[in-house]
Amino acid sequence: MQSLKVICPATSANLGPGFDCLGLALDLHNEIVIKKSAYFSVKIKGEGEDKIQLKKHNLFTNIFCDYYFYLSNQKDNFSFDFINNIPLSRGLGSSSSVIIAALVAASAFAKMQISKSRILSKALEYESHPDNISPALLGGFVSSLLVQDGVKYLKTNISDEVKAVVCIPDTPISTEQSRKALAKSLKFSDACFNIAHSSLLSAAFFSKNYEMLRYASFDKLHQKNRMKNLPILFEVQKTALENKALMSTLSGSGSSFFNLCYADDAEYLFQALSNKFTNMRVLKLNYDNLGARIC
Amino acid sequence: MQSLKVICPATSANLGPGFDCLGLALDLHNEIVIKKSAYFSVKIKGEGEDKIQLKKHNLFTNIFCDYYFYLSNQKDNFSFDFINNIPLSRGLGSSSSVIIAALVAASAFAKMQISKSRILSKALEYESHPDNISPALLGGFVSSLLVQDGVKYLKTNISDEVKAVVCIPDTPISTEQSRKALAKSLKFSDACFNIAHSSLLSAAFFSKNYEMLRYASFDKLHQKNRMKNLPILFEVQKTALENKALMSTLSGSGSSFFNLCYADDAEYLFQALSNKFTNMRVLKLNYDNLGARIC
Repeated sequence: MQSLKVICPATSANLGPGFDCLGLALDLHNEIVIKKSAYFSVKIKGEGEDKIQLKKHNLFTNIFCDYYFYLSNQKDNFSFDFINNIPLSRGLGSSSSVIIAALVAASAFAKMQISKSRILSKALEYESHPDNISPALLGGFVSSLLVQDGVKYLKTNISDEVKAVVCIPDTPISTEQSRKALAKSLKFSDACFNIAHSSLLSAAFFSKNYEMLRYASFDKLHQKNRMKNLPILFEVQKTALENKALMSTLSGSGSSFFNLCYADDAEYLFQALSNKFTNMRVLKLNYDNLGARIC
Repeated sequence: MQSLKVICPATSANLGPGFDCLGLALDLHNEIVIKKSAYFSVKIKGEGEDKIQLKKHNLFTNIFCDYYFYLSNQKDNFSFDFINNIPLSRGLGSSSSVIIAALVAASAFAKMQISKSRILSKALEYESHPDNISPALLGGFVSSLLVQDGVKYLKTNISDEVKAVVCIPDTPISTEQSRKALAKSLKFSDACFNIAHSSLLSAAFFSKNYEMLRYASFDKLHQKNRMKNLPILFEVQKTALENKALMSTLSGSGSSFFNLCYADDAEYLFQALSNKFTNMRVLKLNYDNLGARIC
């Protein structure tokens, strides 16, 4: 094989009450064209194109080259052309997309059929929680669990009856601030709240009863504390829920906000959010039910 | 209407990691025949037949008469013939069965079509958590959530590919001991453990991927502390998991233990448990996908 293109979706994880375990894939992708080449080279268009360190210390090329060598025992040179559409450090799974795309591309280049479970186990070497990497690889809505030797997961497709409207602030929430916002212990009743809500949210996606998200999508573990670092997010949530969103929740650890609505309401919700939050990028998106793939 | 028979299933709730929210219905029923009569009378066969106070202060007759009067504005006398198959105070939902059966029977006698949501809201007046009353009314596996004005739930049928083997000790765990075993606060990591497990357990039932129960069915909230009050339960769990159970978990707050296995393995698991735990009743059961009903 001389060249290939891999694409991998953005993801929204920590989904509602589903801390560290629930996530879904969005129809917003990074694309990477990889060619065998006399020299190593990296070109980046889109997100991160102005970041010189992404060319020198590139997570994708490091993982790709390591895994390709591990699988094929070949030391080849490659050129990498990135078209990055997933915003960096905004809670939309840009790192997971890079990790998964690199592993999937390396397997394809090495002509090896690697199981999805093995890809996920390998991805855990770079990202310790499964809620972004699982939907990045599998697409759809995924409930994941860390077990001793990797990730156990169940996936279901998301119906085209619903769409996403994502609000992306122009600043990240700092990772340090975001970590500080996590408590070491919590009230028994708050834990029970999230257990009941995440179980019903999982049931809602698996039974495609999206109406139930109006009730099942709330969190008492981390979102409120994290949102205090960027208080406009409380307004985003309120506006979304008042304008036909079925659920409205911090994406990952922020700063983006993920809103889900019926397809027929997507334009209405999109207008309400983009008219009010003019400093944010607001995207109206479908879901990706396929996950990372070679094109 | 002069008479009717209502039946209502036993339930196993607090299912695995699904504290206060997940439960399922078993093919083990209480039956009550109710007849209009010149005098109030109660006959009990089976569980509780030797308890004189069940004839004087009977939860079923109290709820039935109150709700019948509320719906019909009639003060009639009835005779009640109970055949009680659900063990009392063993974590198999005997109270929920009584509450739900009484409400369903009163609605039928009053010739009123009461929605399932309304029955559940009414049932919350007698039992504050929804994880037993929901499967008692609906059958199958149910994920429930308390909301301001009642219960929101999603139900899925349980396939006849799997069966239950239930171990019923001859003593209850005292409610007082059982309540003391609940912590007021807990580690963040333990809460996350239960959130991830209950979400995947819910996904496993809704997708009928019962194999995943091998991973999704564990709890870190309450079971271990409660089982310490009856340590033989640790042996029950170990024995079940070593003898083809896909999941093995305290039923409700105990003392019964609920085990789920493939139908083909049910006799094997039943023999292993009943040979070893000769002081317990061991029942091999199907699931009830219909819930409480008039026959």
